[in-house]
Amino acid sequence: MEGSDREVELKEGLEEILRRSSHLMARRGYHGTSMRDLARETQYSLSGLYNYFKDKEELLYLINYRGFSAIIKSLESLLEEFKSPIEQLYLLIYNHLHYFMRHRDEMKVMMMGTHEMDPQRSRTIRAIKNRYFHLGEKIVDELYLTSTGKKLLKRELTRKCYLLFGMVNWTFTWYDQRVHGEPSELIGEIFCTAVTGFFGAQPLAISAESIQRIADEWGKRNLDRESHL
Amino acid sequence: MEGSDREVELKEGLEEILRRSSHLMARRGYHGTSMRDLARETQYSLSGLYNYFKDKEELLYLINYRGFSAIIKSLESLLEEFKSPIEQLYLLIYNHLHYFMRHRDEMKVMMMGTHEMDPQRSRTIRAIKNRYFHLGEKIVDELYLTSTGKKLLKRELTRKCYLLFGMVNWTFTWYDQRVHGEPSELIGEIFCTAVTGFFGAQPLAISAESIQRIADEWGKRNLDRESHL
Repeated sequence: MEGSDREVELKEGLEEILRRSSHLMARRGYHGTSMRDLARETQYSLSGLYNYFKDKEELLYLINYRGFSAIIKSLESLLEEFKSPIEQLYLLIYNHLHYFMRHRDEMKVMMMGTHEMDPQRSRTIRAIKNRYFHLGEKIVDELYLTSTGKKLLKRELTRKCYLLFGMVNWTFTWYDQRVHGEPSELIGEIFCTAVTGFFGAQPLAISAESIQRIADEWGKRNLDRESHL
Repeated sequence: MEGSDREVELKEGLEEILRRSSHLMARRGYHGTSMRDLARETQYSLSGLYNYFKDKEELLYLINYRGFSAIIKSLESLLEEFKSPIEQLYLLIYNHLHYFMRHRDEMKVMMMGTHEMDPQRSRTIRAIKNRYFHLGEKIVDELYLTSTGKKLLKRELTRKCYLLFGMVNWTFTWYDQRVHGEPSELIGEIFCTAVTGFFGAQPLAISAESIQRIADEWGKRNLDRESHL
């Protein structure tokens, strides 16, 4: 079983390296971080790091790939479990925010974009992001249709979906639980703003509190024992 | 008049240097841009650049200082002119978005934060940002009170205001006029989402269209002939 022990060891090593590298890169930026800095931060030798990735560009790709894959994987699993669009909307916000709260450094790196990657890798990341965005659009589209009886124009739908992600993503620049309240308050605030702001006031016969309970249960079952991929 | 000719020349030189430096830094990051790169991009000699700032850190400060000062200056002037909070909210969004549409590179640099600045400069920038944020909070606070008759808790107010800025600031990652519609559509969408989402549906006897006309007039008078400070 030596081969598989070695695989487990490499996998666990990689998790830790990505975590520590994200921590450094989040503070110093991509260009401000050298392979030598990464070796120091991760306590590997340079040649030890090359077992995991051949250069910074590949590291950036791995952080992005694993991060976006983890978020979309949990979103897809919850969309399987919950079929009502209003619950799906709440859980999309819940899943997204909880991921970022547990992975602030990775998120900062993911926000840096894909300019530094080679075109093929950049396309791969963009494809995952697009898939994620389209899942969001589908939820907003269905909610709009069921609450207003009208179909959104494609560009209106896209704008609304970006406004939603804007509210969610911007939290990483400011949200501090001690000052701004519990995550559930923040999630509820974004949810209510989106529901009322996009679809009109109180369009749906379900309370934010009852959805919050559902989400917390789902989170306990799925997020605490998350592995990246 | 030699002294004042020299001043005008330096001032115009600085504008151009900041513009070109922002362009480079927006693409390559702070750490990825050297003084030598900046000299090449601005077509100055290194010693020529030192007439304007003594190092990259000062350059970063100048871009931030001038950018945030310009946004707050035009916001303050419009708050002087328009006293109705609902018009103020529309114009805050209008002013903020129009600044960023005309200064995308500067904005990217401003989004990089102030970690690289010395503590004193970092405090100066933070003070301007706080002043700006509080003007936003004041508007949201008044609107909430007039439309619901209730006073928001401080942390609710802060959260709502950050959600508003999240919608506005995130646009820089995605908004493309050719795909997503005219700026006025985008501004209207953010405005209506905030008004309905924060304060309940249709709380105010004024249409978004009539506010849009007011804002466009203000913009024509104030934004096109803007100088930075």
